[in-house]
Amino acid sequence: MKVLIPDHISEIKKIIQTGRVLLDESDRYSYAFDASFGTYLPDAVIQTKNVQELAALVKLANQEGIPIYPRGQATSLSGGPLPVQGGIVIDLSVMDDVLEVYEEDLVAVVSPGVLTAAIHKAAEEKGLMYPPDPSSSHVSTIGGNLAENSGGPRGLKYGVTKDYVIGLEVITPEGDIIQTGGKTVKNVTGYDLTKLLVGSEGTLGIITKATLRLLPKPLGTATLMVVFSTLVDAGKAISKILSAGILPSKMELMDQASIVAVENYQPMGLPTDAEAIILLELDGHPLALKEEIQSVEQLCYSVGATKVQIPQNDAEKEEIWKARKLVSPAIVRIKPTKISEDATVPRSKIPEMCERLQQIKQTYNVDLVVFGHAGDGNLHPNIICDKNDAEEMARVEKAVAEIFAAAVELGGTLSGEHGIGTMKAPFMEMELGKVGLDMMKRIKQAWDPNNIMNPGKIFPEPGQKLELK
Amino acid sequence: MKVLIPDHISEIKKIIQTGRVLLDESDRYSYAFDASFGTYLPDAVIQTKNVQELAALVKLANQEGIPIYPRGQATSLSGGPLPVQGGIVIDLSVMDDVLEVYEEDLVAVVSPGVLTAAIHKAAEEKGLMYPPDPSSSHVSTIGGNLAENSGGPRGLKYGVTKDYVIGLEVITPEGDIIQTGGKTVKNVTGYDLTKLLVGSEGTLGIITKATLRLLPKPLGTATLMVVFSTLVDAGKAISKILSAGILPSKMELMDQASIVAVENYQPMGLPTDAEAIILLELDGHPLALKEEIQSVEQLCYSVGATKVQIPQNDAEKEEIWKARKLVSPAIVRIKPTKISEDATVPRSKIPEMCERLQQIKQTYNVDLVVFGHAGDGNLHPNIICDKNDAEEMARVEKAVAEIFAAAVELGGTLSGEHGIGTMKAPFMEMELGKVGLDMMKRIKQAWDPNNIMNPGKIFPEPGQKLELK
Repeated sequence: MKVLIPDHISEIKKIIQTGRVLLDESDRYSYAFDASFGTYLPDAVIQTKNVQELAALVKLANQEGIPIYPRGQATSLSGGPLPVQGGIVIDLSVMDDVLEVYEEDLVAVVSPGVLTAAIHKAAEEKGLMYPPDPSSSHVSTIGGNLAENSGGPRGLKYGVTKDYVIGLEVITPEGDIIQTGGKTVKNVTGYDLTKLLVGSEGTLGIITKATLRLLPKPLGTATLMVVFSTLVDAGKAISKILSAGILPSKMELMDQASIVAVENYQPMGLPTDAEAIILLELDGHPLALKEEIQSVEQLCYSVGATKVQIPQNDAEKEEIWKARKLVSPAIVRIKPTKISEDATVPRSKIPEMCERLQQIKQTYNVDLVVFGHAGDGNLHPNIICDKNDAEEMARVEKAVAEIFAAAVELGGTLSGEHGIGTMKAPFMEMELGKVGLDMMKRIKQAWDPNNIMNPGKIFPEPGQKLELK
Repeated sequence: MKVLIPDHISEIKKIIQTGRVLLDESDRYSYAFDASFGTYLPDAVIQTKNVQELAALVKLANQEGIPIYPRGQATSLSGGPLPVQGGIVIDLSVMDDVLEVYEEDLVAVVSPGVLTAAIHKAAEEKGLMYPPDPSSSHVSTIGGNLAENSGGPRGLKYGVTKDYVIGLEVITPEGDIIQTGGKTVKNVTGYDLTKLLVGSEGTLGIITKATLRLLPKPLGTATLMVVFSTLVDAGKAISKILSAGILPSKMELMDQASIVAVENYQPMGLPTDAEAIILLELDGHPLALKEEIQSVEQLCYSVGATKVQIPQNDAEKEEIWKARKLVSPAIVRIKPTKISEDATVPRSKIPEMCERLQQIKQTYNVDLVVFGHAGDGNLHPNIICDKNDAEEMARVEKAVAEIFAAAVELGGTLSGEHGIGTMKAPFMEMELGKVGLDMMKRIKQAWDPNNIMNPGKIFPEPGQKLELK
């Protein structure tokens, strides 16, 4: 679907003075996919650090009806940056020049191409912390995190990306540059465009700068690994800990399938006979931690934990978190295709959701592995399959649709942190209803009347269905 | 400005079956004002707990172009609920029937008429905490807090109302009922309508139910009162504490004028010769608190504090916080009219903002008192005056306009927690620019094409100026 004509291209080359306009198919091909499904070749890829040039480009695109797709490192699991209707990809990973920490204001100002891990490091060097920690933080850009409102394990205690964004510089779909919010934590001056834009998946504008709120870095952290012979006991332990006034910074669940997968992938002595393990991180004052560790240990044993392991040094701590990090690479060894979902339910529904997932696994005979951020109800049911096996993929598509339905039925949501993109768009009306979805669409139409900003995302096309290929 | 004709009234009476339609002038007069300026008599006031009836009423209003003003207890300091164009006030303070705490999900579901203090109490009874604590929490409804995105002293550590709202039931300006968000803390399913609606001051719909996120209640709290001979030293102490990795739950400033006012109003031994005092609350694990108190004490002395007072029991603690609570009643004893502003600056600009405020005080010869949430830059410069003194009020209007200009110049914002309403609408373009304000207006127009929801708020009328009468 080619949408650029030669006149457009010469116009674009005039506008982009300081960067690059990639037109060769070999260059463009690198921008045709992300970490989800589908391959869509863009007509052109733009790389520049110059915001004025980008704004002028968007003005042209708006006049000519050329689709624009902002993109970071394309680690998206939901199809966020895919150029599904052809047009121009803007590679914002090159816009990585600003990373300023203002200690006294407890804020950082960053450009969208900065890696999330670089923000963690810069904040920590000044005794501060940027809490959102998506598992991809070493490869994903903050721009992508902003577009998708990324979460991560620390979401349990600290919330998600949106909770830390207080100001933005944005190119509107008509090519104007606006500032939203600012450097103050409190701001109720008109509608909260900042929090509307974060998580809007690039459909309402291009974020070219962000002001992030930082926190003082906790003085200490502690890690525990707790083993359970049943998933239900693990669920009980999670509730018990939270209602005892303890808010861990992380509380991650691994089910038996993920434990076994990791152990097969890289033996590290995990209890493969356990139905579940919970990995916890507590943070805060060292004196408080000491007591909280004891409380967590007692609470877990009181609901049937079979073992509580407390690492005695940093190396042992790292080993435990490595187990969690290895789940993703371990499971793709089983089969080549991984469908990583993040349907989220209210915390109290975690045991019920786990049961539903086991039923879905059996009904459709799919390889389902469950792990994730149990403390906040944000599980990651992953289906391992082979996308070249059409018969299997038909079963997988049905299983995924049922996972979404189960989450919504239990009072949950389609996506906790991965976003809607192309993949979940067909399910939006199921969760939001006709009017709810229409109220979102009105904002899109009011801001982007020519529908040039990241078209084909969030809002389903008429009759659109889930396709995993 | 009467907008209801007899046909409308009989239609409204048909729709509102379970509640009351107030039409007598004496009844309507109680709904003509709030805690800011101006008196505007509505044509009718509706009281009902029935959401379907309200939705039908909004449908009628939308067809007929009748303005609708949602209202809680009208403690607004910015004119949020004033029926400035006539029409119908909806008294949501009667919708107080739902206050459910779901311990395991760490959420509460509330109807808009519930008092904020009742939510605090219900959460605390289950060992939980609803952090936002506007000073008016004993008289203000959660509905009003949601409309204005209220803050409070604990905003420093815990953020504002918006940070705790994860789901809403809303009547749209066209009379449909929608649900936004849900009961999960993580949710990235489409645009964040929840956070758009919170703080939109009733201009985008009527909130009829809200799901609030709760936290485990901290195990302990500690209070300190620190005395400084100069405002600059107080500012330094604030920075020093925050950059030492200590995040107090409250850090409130009182300047000399407020100290003197309180001491004259109710003598309690405050140091009237001090240029500033800071009141701190720390919360967390008792063992950690013990050490943090010592650190704060040392840090304050190291930047020139003249005295650190640590209460030894709950009664002494309460006495200290009473001093802060008495500032408002104390200063209105000086003169009858109080203009309570909440222009907010980045934390590091607090000393500079304090200087600017002193200049403004002198230039316009106004009675200016400064206190407020210093830890997050959300100061409350209050001007005490007499609204019957036209000459004085002319000076006050100029002084207020300069306070706004100073905040914006220092990278801050018009309002940290009180909202824009009628009072700050004329200054919106100064902060947001033409395009920024237009992007907000587009949302308003897309959602409320007939401009019936709380008209005259946030968006300035052409040529509108600040008027304090």
